[in-house]
Amino acid sequence: MFGQLLSEVVTGIDGAIGAVLMGADGLPVDQVVGDPSRGDIEAMAMELSVVLREIRKAAVQLGAGQAEEVMIRGASMTTLIRVLNDEYFVALALPAEASVGKGRYLLRRAAPRLRENL
Amino acid sequence: MFGQLLSEVVTGIDGAIGAVLMGADGLPVDQVVGDPSRGDIEAMAMELSVVLREIRKAAVQLGAGQAEEVMIRGASMTTLIRVLNDEYFVALALPAEASVGKGRYLLRRAAPRLRENL
Repeated sequence: MFGQLLSEVVTGIDGAIGAVLMGADGLPVDQVVGDPSRGDIEAMAMELSVVLREIRKAAVQLGAGQAEEVMIRGASMTTLIRVLNDEYFVALALPAEASVGKGRYLLRRAAPRLRENL
Repeated sequence: MFGQLLSEVVTGIDGAIGAVLMGADGLPVDQVVGDPSRGDIEAMAMELSVVLREIRKAAVQLGAGQAEEVMIRGASMTTLIRVLNDEYFVALALPAEASVGKGRYLLRRAAPRLRENL
């Protein structure tokens, strides 16, 4: 179920590196790899869960409210994160040249269905 | 000089809370407040510089390369960050309902001119 939804996200955007459904504790629930040459999506997700914890704390302290979405664009990869609830998030890794807007749209569309099945 | 460029960013988008040019060490260089009712943009920027340090480390470890841009969308505020160089970044705080795409565009447009004057 999760695999199918993640797969829709990954195939929805050219060159997508992969998508992963993660627990906030750093444990991956399910993942779909789009470009296996781009490294270990599971290791990436663990790293993300650590940063996301910091970001979530900071968002509240900033007065921004609960963090709902995070984008980190690096020189060679863009990472999009959508928080599903207190315990789970979904992340999408894209090549630097991919459309951030399209990626955000795909995660936004998948989020309610992922949440329903958690 | 910086104030004028930050002001162009803030006035370019309806309801913008403020923009700040920051040192990576947490010291603000210049700032423009768009909506003073939305809290202390300087305190916000200091908090951001801490998170950004973590994000930059993580981006490299993720294999994403040097972090260039970060977006944190919270329930009540969106924060956009654009890294200018190793030592400086510019941040824009927007209300939750503002267009992320427009904000990114305004920062992207201002970045080369801010960088030139650093």
